[in-house]
Amino acid sequence: MTDTEIADPWAVTSLEIFERLEETIAGEADHAVATVVDVDGSAYRRPGAKMLLGDDGSTFGGITAGCLEGPLQTIARDVIADQSPSVVTFDLTDDEDGWGLGLGCEGIVDVLVEPADDAWRDPVDAYAEGDPVALVTVVDGTESIPPGSRAVVDGDGTATESDSRPAIPDQILEQVRDDARERAADGRWTQRTVSIGEEELTLFVDGIEPADRLLIFGGQPDVRPVTRLARDVGFEVTVATARGGQAEESAFPRADRVVSTHPTELGELVDERTYVVVMSHNFLDDGLALESLLESDVPFIGLMGPRERFERLRDDLADEGISLSAADRKRIASPVGLDLGGGEPIEIALSIVSEALAVSNGREGGRLRDRKGPIHARQPTQSD
Amino acid sequence: MTDTEIADPWAVTSLEIFERLEETIAGEADHAVATVVDVDGSAYRRPGAKMLLGDDGSTFGGITAGCLEGPLQTIARDVIADQSPSVVTFDLTDDEDGWGLGLGCEGIVDVLVEPADDAWRDPVDAYAEGDPVALVTVVDGTESIPPGSRAVVDGDGTATESDSRPAIPDQILEQVRDDARERAADGRWTQRTVSIGEEELTLFVDGIEPADRLLIFGGQPDVRPVTRLARDVGFEVTVATARGGQAEESAFPRADRVVSTHPTELGELVDERTYVVVMSHNFLDDGLALESLLESDVPFIGLMGPRERFERLRDDLADEGISLSAADRKRIASPVGLDLGGGEPIEIALSIVSEALAVSNGREGGRLRDRKGPIHARQPTQSD
Repeated sequence: MTDTEIADPWAVTSLEIFERLEETIAGEADHAVATVVDVDGSAYRRPGAKMLLGDDGSTFGGITAGCLEGPLQTIARDVIADQSPSVVTFDLTDDEDGWGLGLGCEGIVDVLVEPADDAWRDPVDAYAEGDPVALVTVVDGTESIPPGSRAVVDGDGTATESDSRPAIPDQILEQVRDDARERAADGRWTQRTVSIGEEELTLFVDGIEPADRLLIFGGQPDVRPVTRLARDVGFEVTVATARGGQAEESAFPRADRVVSTHPTELGELVDERTYVVVMSHNFLDDGLALESLLESDVPFIGLMGPRERFERLRDDLADEGISLSAADRKRIASPVGLDLGGGEPIEIALSIVSEALAVSNGREGGRLRDRKGPIHARQPTQSD
Repeated sequence: MTDTEIADPWAVTSLEIFERLEETIAGEADHAVATVVDVDGSAYRRPGAKMLLGDDGSTFGGITAGCLEGPLQTIARDVIADQSPSVVTFDLTDDEDGWGLGLGCEGIVDVLVEPADDAWRDPVDAYAEGDPVALVTVVDGTESIPPGSRAVVDGDGTATESDSRPAIPDQILEQVRDDARERAADGRWTQRTVSIGEEELTLFVDGIEPADRLLIFGGQPDVRPVTRLARDVGFEVTVATARGGQAEESAFPRADRVVSTHPTELGELVDERTYVVVMSHNFLDDGLALESLLESDVPFIGLMGPRERFERLRDDLADEGISLSAADRKRIASPVGLDLGGGEPIEIALSIVSEALAVSNGREGGRLRDRKGPIHARQPTQSD
């Protein structure tokens, strides 16, 4: 947790939503979680987008560009009072006159509004631990299996229930277990309709990916804007300095943690969800850091500095008998950053953070207008 | 001027440097301006990069990644005490043992350190007015034309002097007037050595481009993160809403100004340095805004929303007999943004601001590692 104020409670990241949710479920039962579960037509946020609403009218996050937050506050109050989940459909197709009120909120949006109750404890803990899960939630139910019935499925397919919600019967859960395991792995969503006797149930399978991590190796002032922007856009940020004296939390107020390490041990701080930027400005340290990272399974190693500097690093590695595999060349970004052309520290930071974000989403950072194919990730094809 | 604190005084933008400089020259003569005027080898910032230093040891901005700020403070104190400019060469090629102190500050850097005196008034005023100028400064001089001798040349080639600095004789200035006019236009730099009698003088021609402007048409909460990031990376930001009731400064604390306008009059708020993002979420308003902007000379019109929405806007324009020229298609970005793949409001904002920054620098986004050719802009070829 960083020690700075939230600049804009509407534009918070998933990381901040889950941090706040953790605080919320530890307190009074006075908040609701709203999740987009289906979208037909144009909408600002995709399924899985979440916000928190308090019974005092407060909001944290936003799931539309200002269209539904008002009516959602009313619904949230009822959900909190009853501690009972609800699914609401907003039809915004009557664009200029309906809910949209000229705000251009187009499309039909289904929103699950549920209490921030104990059913959230496992997902919140998993998020904090860095473990992906999928929430399986009934969004169109029966009398005995009402909306909000919930199971949490982990990456192995193991399901857990909560006392605070009706359970989903095994025979139902079995039909979506594979979906749930896959959604835990890819963080995406699936809407599934399954049969139980003569009735039908609709389930929303919501992959919850923990926040990606950004590890910055370096301790100079130019690390600060990278730290700040990365935290702003939802990375959990660690600054690792090779100089004990510089590893001060206060120097990097937006970092989640600041550690002092030896570059040869950098690989011990990372995992397969850690994006790394090497920017110590020290050639020897950067080389040792690169060597250590190559032995890890990080998906991204960004190297600050000109191409020629990387070529020297690579030659030094070759002298030690270490050659880069095709996979290594793919994960190394040198020079680090998107091609934005700016030379100011904040512009360089923007370029670096934009690249890490693009790579974390499997994108290449060119202009959207030139992109072939859809802009948003689509619901994965249903497997049967 | 925005009403928020500077998050990191080291990582400020040119806009913030000039705003601070404006305050500084109105006060006590207790600050110096340091400008990189030459770089040989690898260095963090390019020529033209600036920072402010106070005689109390304070710094604002940074021209190296922490290598030279210490020695620069000492030099700045002398410059402020004497109110006399100085040019200092830092040789960092002895990387691990010299000034670099293991910080990997490589290369040779020449820095002009000059008092924040009245000679800055014209450039600061021009910056605030949005008028580009070039500073012509002697960096290697003679007894009668010492370092810091200065002329300010505007886009027409007209030079003005200041009482607080020795003038550059006409016969010298004439030799760099074309350079100065070009640098005022492109914001880049030129180093020129010219002869006067049997002596030689070296001049640094420093193009000062005013901050680019970002105009956001819209008033919904999703405008806020765009405003914030755009201001963070150095755009002067205007929010224009089509709804009078929403045009509240307080809703967009990071905007330089918030205006209420009719979309048909949007073109009156812009100039050739204004990047525009159309995101009112109202189809009719966005269409009117686009129509108005097409009659202006803005270099960038980003349209929020899917491709199909733009196609409808374009068809509506065609029905009115308005067709898009090749230049219009080039300046319209639809969907707006770089391809970063994120769907959260702050990620969308990052995508938009990154694209506007890239376009303002003549870049296309994409990954630097895939870029052909040099990363930094080079000194323009000397014209003789």
